[in-house]
Amino acid sequence: MPTDLTGKKIAFIVNNSGVEQPELTRPWDDLGAAGATTTLIAPEAGEVKAFNNDVEPGDTFTAELAVSDADPADYDALVIPGGTTNADSLRLDASAVAFVKAFAEAGKPVAAICHGPWMLVESGVVEGKTLTSYASLQTDVRNAGGSWVDEEACTDDAKGWTLVTSRDPDDLDAFVEAAAAAFA
Amino acid sequence: MPTDLTGKKIAFIVNNSGVEQPELTRPWDDLGAAGATTTLIAPEAGEVKAFNNDVEPGDTFTAELAVSDADPADYDALVIPGGTTNADSLRLDASAVAFVKAFAEAGKPVAAICHGPWMLVESGVVEGKTLTSYASLQTDVRNAGGSWVDEEACTDDAKGWTLVTSRDPDDLDAFVEAAAAAFA
Repeated sequence: MPTDLTGKKIAFIVNNSGVEQPELTRPWDDLGAAGATTTLIAPEAGEVKAFNNDVEPGDTFTAELAVSDADPADYDALVIPGGTTNADSLRLDASAVAFVKAFAEAGKPVAAICHGPWMLVESGVVEGKTLTSYASLQTDVRNAGGSWVDEEACTDDAKGWTLVTSRDPDDLDAFVEAAAAAFA
Repeated sequence: MPTDLTGKKIAFIVNNSGVEQPELTRPWDDLGAAGATTTLIAPEAGEVKAFNNDVEPGDTFTAELAVSDADPADYDALVIPGGTTNADSLRLDASAVAFVKAFAEAGKPVAAICHGPWMLVESGVVEGKTLTSYASLQTDVRNAGGSWVDEEACTDDAKGWTLVTSRDPDDLDAFVEAAAAAFA
């Protein structure tokens, strides 16, 4: 990770249950090691239960802020980890959906992996963008007006904001590198 | 269950892991008790691992047939149970998607609950239909051309086939009653 992210404030948004653990911890650790300040945000402040392979209980993390108390203006960039039930539940939280939308509207970079792009579909920011995701989302992405591609990391600058997307945990090396480049 | 389903052959399609247990067992038991012959079909014949609340391991069931070996012509109706990871994985199976589509194209009734309607989105049969689902799918349903409604059981006869849909396990009484009426 040669990219220097000193001074960058990066928000991570997850549900209080269901995040795919390495999709949280790898970007969190690597972007932090590059100098960024990272903040974990969820529908409720407090416990975040991670899983591996969607249904195997993982570790517990702590959300510093409830999304309804978080101001997108306080952050330079956003990371949206995956996990099937994580993204499926998070898209039902209106504050979380508005939080994601605010980054795109402000022209700030967003990086989403695996099932995280459902949050982009829910926020209505996919139209005219080129992106990847876990393969099961491709029809939802296309129906939302996006161009779905099958790549380990896709960086798209259309519509005035940069979107970095990847397919699954096997893409994490490329995902973190592309996210760091977009956030620098 | 006053409806008589004697002689009706009903296929149930699920993934080999992830089905929300009561969304399989309630329709299976009740439609069987009404006289229907029920067949469990999955991407692979054999073990089907059910869950409760998406991530709590439930019981194990047995798929009699692999979907690639199943002929839609052998059945009068189709049930698509939910479960977030169930539907998320099943929509990646091309044979399962084609199996679902065949029922709509043949004008046969289909009943889908919770996250099951993702299979309808993936099969391209939602356009012009009115349906409900787990609330998180509503944007995907609308983007696929469907009219999403918030009802415990929705029966729609548009486009030459009957679709019964419900939102979650709390709707199972209404779901099974509406499915039985549609299948009779």
